[in-house]
This record gives sequence, structure tokens and C-alpha cells, in this order.
Amino acid sequence: MIKVGIVGGTGYTGVELLRLLAQHPEVKLTAITSRTEAGMPVVEMFPSLRGRVDLKFTTPDEAKLNECDAVFFATPHGVAMAQAKELLANNVKVLDLAADFRLKDVKEFSKWYGMEHGCPEILAEAVYGLPEINREAIKKARVVGLAGCYPTSVQLGLAPLLSPKSTGGKHLIDGTHIISDSKSGTSGAGRKAEIGTLLSEASDNFKAYSVKGHRHLPEIEQGLKAIAGHEQIGLTFVPHLTPMIRGIHSTLYVRLADAGKDVDYQKLYETFYKDEPFVDVMPAGSHPETRSVRGSNGIRIAIHRPGGGDTLVILVVEDNLVKGASGQGVQCLNLMFGLPETTGLTQIAVSP
Amino acid sequence: MIKVGIVGGTGYTGVELLRLLAQHPEVKLTAITSRTEAGMPVVEMFPSLRGRVDLKFTTPDEAKLNECDAVFFATPHGVAMAQAKELLANNVKVLDLAADFRLKDVKEFSKWYGMEHGCPEILAEAVYGLPEINREAIKKARVVGLAGCYPTSVQLGLAPLLSPKSTGGKHLIDGTHIISDSKSGTSGAGRKAEIGTLLSEASDNFKAYSVKGHRHLPEIEQGLKAIAGHEQIGLTFVPHLTPMIRGIHSTLYVRLADAGKDVDYQKLYETFYKDEPFVDVMPAGSHPETRSVRGSNGIRIAIHRPGGGDTLVILVVEDNLVKGASGQGVQCLNLMFGLPETTGLTQIAVSP
Amino acid sequence: MIKVGIVGGTGYTGVELLRLLAQHPEVKLTAITSRTEAGMPVVEMFPSLRGRVDLKFTTPDEAKLNECDAVFFATPHGVAMAQAKELLANNVKVLDLAADFRLKDVKEFSKWYGMEHGCPEILAEAVYGLPEINREAIKKARVVGLAGCYPTSVQLGLAPLLSPKSTGGKHLIDGTHIISDSKSGTSGAGRKAEIGTLLSEASDNFKAYSVKGHRHLPEIEQGLKAIAGHEQIGLTFVPHLTPMIRGIHSTLYVRLADAGKDVDYQKLYETFYKDEPFVDVMPAGSHPETRSVRGSNGIRIAIHRPGGGDTLVILVVEDNLVKGASGQGVQCLNLMFGLPETTGLTQIAVSP
Amino acid sequence: MIKVGIVGGTGYTGVELLRLLAQHPEVKLTAITSRTEAGMPVVEMFPSLRGRVDLKFTTPDEAKLNECDAVFFATPHGVAMAQAKELLANNVKVLDLAADFRLKDVKEFSKWYGMEHGCPEILAEAVYGLPEINREAIKKARVVGLAGCYPTSVQLGLAPLLSPKSTGGKHLIDGTHIISDSKSGTSGAGRKAEIGTLLSEASDNFKAYSVKGHRHLPEIEQGLKAIAGHEQIGLTFVPHLTPMIRGIHSTLYVRLADAGKDVDYQKLYETFYKDEPFVDVMPAGSHPETRSVRGSNGIRIAIHRPGGGDTLVILVVEDNLVKGASGQGVQCLNLMFGLPETTGLTQIAVSP
Repeated sequence: MIKVGIVGGTGYTGVELLRLLAQHPEVKLTAITSRTEAGMPVVEMFPSLRGRVDLKFTTPDEAKLNECDAVFFATPHGVAMAQAKELLANNVKVLDLAADFRLKDVKEFSKWYGMEHGCPEILAEAVYGLPEINREAIKKARVVGLAGCYPTSVQLGLAPLLSPKSTGGKHLIDGTHIISDSKSGTSGAGRKAEIGTLLSEASDNFKAYSVKGHRHLPEIEQGLKAIAGHEQIGLTFVPHLTPMIRGIHSTLYVRLADAGKDVDYQKLYETFYKDEPFVDVMPAGSHPETRSVRGSNGIRIAIHRPGGGDTLVILVVEDNLVKGASGQGVQCLNLMFGLPETTGLTQIAVSP
Repeated sequence: MIKVGIVGGTGYTGVELLRLLAQHPEVKLTAITSRTEAGMPVVEMFPSLRGRVDLKFTTPDEAKLNECDAVFFATPHGVAMAQAKELLANNVKVLDLAADFRLKDVKEFSKWYGMEHGCPEILAEAVYGLPEINREAIKKARVVGLAGCYPTSVQLGLAPLLSPKSTGGKHLIDGTHIISDSKSGTSGAGRKAEIGTLLSEASDNFKAYSVKGHRHLPEIEQGLKAIAGHEQIGLTFVPHLTPMIRGIHSTLYVRLADAGKDVDYQKLYETFYKDEPFVDVMPAGSHPETRSVRGSNGIRIAIHRPGGGDTLVILVVEDNLVKGASGQGVQCLNLMFGLPETTGLTQIAVSP
Repeated sequence: MIKVGIVGGTGYTGVELLRLLAQHPEVKLTAITSRTEAGMPVVEMFPSLRGRVDLKFTTPDEAKLNECDAVFFATPHGVAMAQAKELLANNVKVLDLAADFRLKDVKEFSKWYGMEHGCPEILAEAVYGLPEINREAIKKARVVGLAGCYPTSVQLGLAPLLSPKSTGGKHLIDGTHIISDSKSGTSGAGRKAEIGTLLSEASDNFKAYSVKGHRHLPEIEQGLKAIAGHEQIGLTFVPHLTPMIRGIHSTLYVRLADAGKDVDYQKLYETFYKDEPFVDVMPAGSHPETRSVRGSNGIRIAIHRPGGGDTLVILVVEDNLVKGASGQGVQCLNLMFGLPETTGLTQIAVSP
Repeated sequence: MIKVGIVGGTGYTGVELLRLLAQHPEVKLTAITSRTEAGMPVVEMFPSLRGRVDLKFTTPDEAKLNECDAVFFATPHGVAMAQAKELLANNVKVLDLAADFRLKDVKEFSKWYGMEHGCPEILAEAVYGLPEINREAIKKARVVGLAGCYPTSVQLGLAPLLSPKSTGGKHLIDGTHIISDSKSGTSGAGRKAEIGTLLSEASDNFKAYSVKGHRHLPEIEQGLKAIAGHEQIGLTFVPHLTPMIRGIHSTLYVRLADAGKDVDYQKLYETFYKDEPFVDVMPAGSHPETRSVRGSNGIRIAIHRPGGGDTLVILVVEDNLVKGASGQGVQCLNLMFGLPETTGLTQIAVSP
């Protein structure tokens, strides 16, 4: 059994990790920390886990994280970078659900997150946690910076159009003017006391936010450049808040380049993802629904070319807390410990 | 492996059976019927099952239900009673999610369901499918009429107050004036094209319905009388439609009789349910939330005695599609085939 | 024009007052205070008012409230009692939307609100703001403590059963065991940064709360005793949180006394409320929906006697922010200034 | 008083017309027709109107529509075209909320609506009902084909970029590759018994639909060409279903042409709409929310240019049932009868 600890378990990615790991046949949860709630049984905060998780929140000291095999950080940015060094020194693998190990450029990190990066040397070895793109590197990684929720949907939605494996190196699309119109449920904002995501505010309502620039923009651009193997990538990314709990729907718009006008995109996507257990390329003409992946680690993609024109529309759905966060974390954990990638991740979506 | 067929798989209890049975280690789904959709892959209607269920809907004839070990009816009332006889003759066990085998009195059935009962002789042997009350009988049953969604919450919420096992035969409460104020999500109304449960109608809205008399009233009264072992039971049952998909919350009000004034009800409930894998008596003072059982087979109960007065308030939550329908069906299936009762039912609630 | 100021305008009752008063033909809004937001245009916080309200939030000092004709307190309890004296000394009428002037017994106030009452002498002259019960007193009042949201629904739902005007002094019901199972949208919890009412927590969910004892319990009991003219009143009050923004639905259960068994309750209610502009006794058999009063000052009531038995079920709906708060405030304002009671309150519910 | 009749009053645009017209000071509602519900009081179907509308649904014959001054068609397409001729012959003005008089090209109509157009000669004189674009023509019109819900948001969102009045004839943007990512609440699908818009299906869910081609696409393209005064317009239009009742949010993406790179777009929009009573150009950096116009006839627009690049993002919100349908109908009615344009349309949005 892999001994796993969770730092910062009182948020939504924390409780989702608990839900997944409590059902994982090869994992033993040994500790979950929360400075503010130390001593409280986890089930007091999360009654959905009654009968299934008997841990209490503990202080980081009591948690003996150094004795774990792996530690997840389900914390705000800034925490994992402060603790990773010691854990690694103790041969504990680190998986960060926040942004500490995503952006490779520490200046970009500082610009978007408003703080100096605390451990550039670990950042240098950290692997970006998006298995469908980065599988082999993750297998060998000691530190994984898990892909963000929006970035997962956008990158997997675009990879077949950009990856040389798929395109043979041709520029099928104008990569400099990609549009991602993304919509998220409110759980993406976290379990934080804020007025803007009260039911009274966010229900029966729809709005865009952070149009000026969202922290996931540099992460997505970095990822797309890595996938494409070139720098000619430009993205307009507009996130929206949708009155639902879970789910991300990214509607992606790309303009075809001349080299891309005669391609069968349905086939391109099906081929690219044919061996992926969690990526489902839906039949041509489909409209994936976020509920079809609610509570599961799946991501579903549909490709449209309206009117046969030169604009491609790609629809992508995922559960932001599973494939967009904790499920992806477990997927990486499986890879890092040599387990079958789907271990503990076979939940079927709860629908309706 | 138990070979299982489903009749009428296009409704919510049908798709929920599919979700549960596709994850059940001892079940092989062999057929799912739908006259109207015969030939359509199940996943076309229910994309949440893509990659997990590869059946097509078939006509009842093609389904070869007689070769199954067990058949679920996820149909409107009237269907199971027409087909049960032949199935039983072929040694197929029958589990009906509708009302055909719930009410023991055929006159009551006719009164509330507006049709003659088609097979009183099978009704006579049918067992009421509420395992916490009826476990031994279910184990031996050939035909099970699964308890309704509201009735499950009300009966399990009241059983410790009425069952002689628990009360020692004393009348702790005035059983003639029980009040059940019950609230259900809209999935309880089924997957039917109706105006009243459109999102535009039912969202951001709350209402009671069927106050004059709901079909679950006679079922609950029959059940409570059976539990109590006497006939002095009278119930005011008011169901309400809540703007959510899944979940039932029953708020039960009973007035204590003299013999019931000095009882420790927290302890009474904990004792009564101490060995039940799916019933969770929450700590004193709790307010169970429907989401804490969303997608799981659990039922959570809390007992209150406001101001120490003579009115007891019992709060009960369940997922109407799981413990209130399909999960309970699988629980009974397990019992009928000698499997551990929790087989295939270990999903943790999806929350948030 | 009546010059009106609002203290504490950043909550939901504040913005609802603004919506109603901005459409009121006899009111001139002169000031709205908020210590924390002083200087900010109101429409920056509440864009729904753009083009209709051009005030800025001001400090109480700048607001010159002493020059108003009337001041509303849309504040937490404790604020109105601290400022009422000076306002009254300047001939300013006071309407408090919080609890400072509701409970007549200062000990009860202290018990439920955890603080000493700051001005018992003003409390003594304060009038309870429930026009259908207290109209004449409100007309002459200098200080009105507006009825709470739940209490409005429960009292108006029960008044015809208790008021000697209606009963002729007979005890139609057992007043000592009334049950109010009440459901509220989340706006009743106010515009406060709290985890429990986040969309991620409260949506697709249902729960009871404060079963042990809610602050509205003593207010309702005091009100019912005043209506009945006797002290034999006992209430079990269980509030629930419903996943919607606005609306209260109270389901009331009373047991008929012998003297009440032959009464035509439909007629009793219709007679009692026949001249009330905002109370709608619906046809027998109706199930009022909260959306039917969304955004309006109406309250709708339906009376049921299931199975002709001795339990009466009364269904009551209101918009908690209008008839349950700000609309009732405007209704009282109209009375206090000799205007037709419906002035500025003729909005039709927004439905769907 | 203007005598107004409504044909087909049982849908959402019908009940919304009733809400608005019942509060309109210059309108007398004389008839509302429904073949299926003839004889039923309107308030039985729409209790929100109790006490405010005392009409019954009548058959078209009983309705004496020929004696009206104006008749609204709140019907599916195909109805208005069949009845308009006779009404016009009787000097009755016609306002159609459906699509009969929107598309000028009868072949396009046939292609998208699957039927022959029944009265091309009336179509020829019909005026497109979008007052901010077409005000003078509407004033003189006998027949108005009211703009669709999505088309209103897209056209008003783009008009300042395309209209020669605003651009001086310059091509500020690449009009051939406009993207409209639009989101609608479920009321846009109408009050029809359908599975796809049940709360159980559409709640806590998000999806695109009709990506292949939506009926509003040709309407929008026709409108944009008319506004621009040229034919180089191409649109990718992707509608989405959002789990809310009312509201449309269109996120528009356009690429700036060279001539458009130095324009102050905030100022351009503010200038273009400076005299419009219902169009609100929000401050730079704003994110309009659909709830800020819920129940009102307003439309709010914000302009963004992320990173100062060459992609412009325009955010537009409206209430699909008001500015997107019935409110716009009343606005046109006011123009056609020489009333101030805002008469009866001064409702403030209900928010929260």
C-alpha cells in the first residue's frame, strides 16, 4: 500500500482527493492536515465521508508527512514550494494541485501570482501533470505540478491539432489566434467564504470574469507551445462562471490554415486519443454535456466544422474537481508508483 | 456471475441501475429493453455510460429475459405484473421498482393506481423490498416489490419508534397523528416530458403537491403498521418539489406518548441501526444534508427534541434514485443471491 | 415627497428597498449609508440599479439622516436601537428591518440575540410591523419593528384560525402543538461571505437548520399569542434551506379541536382576508408556488384538510425579501404617511 | 387606450407579455387566445397574475381580434403569416414574436424553418423589430417581425463596430470571421414538454447545441449585413444551454482590421448608444451579469481588448424574455403608436 498524506484538506480538491483515495485499492491515507481545523474529525466537516474516512485533521507536525510515500498539496499556491524540499529529502513524492510547479518561468510566476518563487531548483525538475501529454516524464517524476482545471480542458482539446505526432509537423491551424471560451461551475472558485459565489449571487446568473487576464492563460500558452514544439501560439481566454457546482465546458475556436483544410478532424482526434482511458472522442455531431463526466475522471471531446468553413469548433467537458484536479492527481500518482493508470478511477459519472 | 436484465431502461431508475450494475463485480448485464428505443445503443441516450456499457436497447422479445437470473422492472406500474408470471415460471427472480407489488390490498392498489391488479396470486407471495425491515424475507423471495422513495425515508425514519424490537411493545408515540413533511428533487418525477418539471418551471421555486393524497401514503401506512405490529397508525403526508435533481429530505414530526417521555432517542436509534451498513444515525444535533448521500446508497438520520418538549423531529435524507430506488434494488438483489449486502454499493457520495 | 434614508444598504434587504423605493412615486431617496463602502456609487455594487439610482454610499454623518422624514434600518440587530432615539428626537420615523423592535420582552431579546437591549423605552412604544394584523397601530407609529420573514408567513397563515375576529372566540385548533415546517431560499441568510450558502454548498442540496431553536420562534409565538388573545400557544418551528434565491414556503400543520371540526376553512380564510390587497387566498385544492410571488409583495395561502381528517395543512408562500422584509417595510411606510397602502408596490411577480 | 390582443398566450413570451402589458398605462388587454385552453382563466395557468389579469383564454373566433388596435403573436412560426393578412385588412397592427417576418429571403426561411412562406407580400413590407437599429421604420410599420433573442444580443453587441454611422465607413474589424459564443437560460426553449430541458437534465449541467447551424444564424447574418451596409459578414454562432431560467450572455470575438487598431472602443460604444434608454454601455473592465437585467428591458454591454491585442471581446447580457422578446415587442408597440418608447417598460431588474 502506498502511504499518502494530504496537506490542506479542507477545500474542494481536498475532499475530492479523500473521496477518490478512500476508494483506491492501493492507497492508505495516513494523514490530512489543516492548521485551523486540527483535531476535528474529517467527517464533521464532510459528512459525505461518514463511515469511510476516520482520520482527523492534524497539524503538519503531527502528520509525519516525511514518512509518507507521497504527499498531495491541496493548498493555495505558495505552500507546496515551501515544503517540497524537505519531503523530497525524505524520499516523499510531491503532487501539487496548486500552481507552484506549473509555470516554468519564475518571472511569469511572479507576475501572475504576486510572489517570488520559493524554490526554483525544484521547479526545474518538476514535471507538468497532464498524463495524456507527459506520461513518461510523470512516471519518473519526484515532483508533479498538476495541470490546472481550465488548462486541462484547453490543452487536451487542442493537442491533436498542434502535436507533431498528429500533424506530422504541418501547421493545420492559425495557432496565433486561438479562442477558448470556457465555462466553469462554482466549485472551481474553491471552498472559500466569498460573496461572489454565494448561491444568492451566482445562481440563476451567468457572467464572464477576468477577461483582462486569468492566471491560467500563461499556463495554457506554455503548455500549447510545448505540445506544438514552436512558439507561434496566441490565445484569447475568457472564463465564465456558470450556475452549477461541478464541470468545465470549453468551447474552442480555431481558424484552419491552408494546410489544414482537407483534414478529417474526427479521425485525427480519434487516432490521437485511441489508447487513452480517460479521453473520449465523441461521435461527429455530438454535444458533450458536463454532467456526463460529473464525479468521474473522464474528459469528452467533440469536433465541429460548422458549414464546412474554415473555423473549427471543439467542445470539451470535464469535471473540474476530478480530471481538472484530484482525479488527475490520482492518475499521476498511479503513474509515479507503477500502478495501472485507471486504478481507483473507475467511478461512472453520476447522471442525472 | 448473475445474469441480469432490465425492462424499461430509459428512465432515471433505469440509468441508475445501469450505473450501479456496471460497477457490480458479480453481475453480468445481459439485456435492457425499450420498445420505443430498440436498436439504439444505451450510450446514445446516456453518454455518461460511454465506455462502460455496450448494450443496445432491445425489444422484450429479443432480450431473452427468461434466460436471466434476475430481471428488474424500471417501468411504470402495470408492466411488471403482466410479465412476472412467465419469468417466475422460468426461475427468473423479479425485482419491481414500480408499485405493482407494494400494496398488499388489491382494492387499495386499484383505488390509488386506477387499474385492476393483474396477478393477485404473485402479489400474495411478493416481499416488500426494504431490507432493513424485511431482510430475511427478501433473502428467500422470488418477487420483490421495492419500497418507494418517500416510503423508504419515512419508514426507516420511524421504525425505531414503532418496532416492538425497539420499543419493547410500548407505545412511545401517538402513532395516529404522524406528520411527514417530505421534499424531493425533480428526478423523483421521472424522465418524462412534462411542463411542471422543466427547469424553467421548477428551478428557483418551491411548492407542495398532492396534498390531497399521494400514492405513497397507503404504502407508508401499510409499512408502518407492519413495523409496529398494530393498526393505530395515521399519517399526514405532504410531499414537496425542491429545485434540485436528486435527494429526499423527510422531516418527521411525532408527539410523544406518556410512555415515551423519558426515552433517550439518540440511543434508541443508534441501537436499532447499529449493524446496518447503509443507515447512519448522525450525532445528536445534526442536520443531515441530501448532498451527503448524493449518488450513494446511504440514508442518514438525525433526531431532535426541540426545547425538550413532547414533539420529536426526525430528519432523514437519502438519494431517491439510489437508496430510494435502484440502489435498494441492488441491495435486495445481493440478498436474494446470497452476496454480501454491500456488494457493488460502496460508492461514496459526490459532494460538493 | 417623503424624504427617506437607508442605513446599511449593502445587504439584500437594502438593495431590495432601493429597487422598490426607486419606483415609488411619493418617495425621494436622500441617503444610503455604509461605513465600509462610503464613497462608492451604489450601482457599482448593484449594477441592476444602473440608470435608476445615482446615490453613493455615505457615512452616517454625511447622510444627514436627521433631515429625513423616515429612515429604514437594513442592518444587523443592534444598530437601530442605538440610533433610533436621536432620529425620533428629530421627528424622523424609524422602520427597522432587523430584530431590535420585534420582541417585547427584553429578556427574551437578550436570550436569543445575545446582547442587552439598548433602549427599552423606545421598544415599549414600537409597533410590530405586520399590517394585516396591526394596521391601525402602524398608522400612528413613530417606530416600527418590521415582522421577520418566516414570522410573516406563519402568522398570516394562522391568523384566521386564531383571531377572535374570525373564530368568534372559539378554540378551533389545538394551539399548543402547531407545527411550522418552513423552507427558505438562501437570500434569507443575507449578503454575507459564508461557506454554508455558497452555490457549491447549498445548490442541489436540501437541509434543515437550527432545529434546536431559531430566533424567529419567540417572535412567532409572541405574535400568535397577540393574535389569539391568549397564551396557550406552542410551536415547533423547523426552518430549512432550499436551493433557490428568493422565497419562503411555510407548510403549517394544526390539529382541529372539537369546536373546529365543522368549520368551512376555505370560507373562513377568504372572509378574513377579503379586503387585503396583498393576501391571496387561493382556490381550494391549490398548491401555491414561491415563484408566483417572486419580486412582488404578495402572499398566497391555500388550505387543505387531507382525507377530511382532523389535521389542517396550510400552505403559505411569500418573497422573503419583499413581503418578508423590504416590501412590508414600504407597506408600513405608506401607512405611516397616509398613502394608499399599495403605493409603489404594484410589481407583478417575475415568473418564470 | 390601445386595444391589444395576444394570440397564443400559453408560452413564456405570452405570459411575459401579460406581465408587461398588465402594467402598461396605455394598453387595454382585450383578448388572449389559446385553442387548447379556451375557457380557462389565465390565472389558473399563471398564478403569478392573480389579481392583475382577469381574462380567460378564448378561441381565436371569440377573441374578435379584428377589433383590436394591435395583435401580438406569441406562437410558433407559421401562425402569424396565416392570420396577418386579415388583421391588416382590418387596420390591426401585427407584431410577431416568432420568425415569420424576420428573414427577408423566403428561400432562406424555407431552408431553416422547413415550410413555405405563406405570405411573401406581407413579408415584403414587414419591418424588423430591433428599435435601436430600425426605429424610424418601426414607427411607420403595420407589421413587425420582432428580432430573436440571440440576434438582439449579437446585433446590438456588434452594431457600433459595423455601422457606418459609427465607423465612418471604415472596416474596423474582419467581419468575415466573427464569433458569437452565446449562452441562454432554458426559458429560451419555450414552455414545452420536453425531456432535454427538464430540471433533472438541464440543471447542474452545461452544453452547446445546434453547433451545426441554428435558425438564428441567418437572421443575425442578415441583420449584420444590413447594419454594415455590405455583404462581407461571416459568423460562427455557437449557442449553449445554461442552467438558469432567464438570461442570455453573448461573448463576441472579433479580430481588428488595420483600420481598427487605434480606435477607442469604449468611447465608440458610448457614443453610439448615448441616447438609447435600454442600452447600457458599462464602464471599461466590467463583466455584466445576466441577473442585472432579469425581468427588465435593459441590455448591458462591456468591451474588452485583452492584453491590448488585436482581438476584441464584447460581453452582452439581456433578459431573453424581455429585451429578447416581449419587452422588445412592447417597445415596438410604443413606437408604432407614438408613445414614449419606455412606457410600461420601467421595471427594475429583480436582483438577487
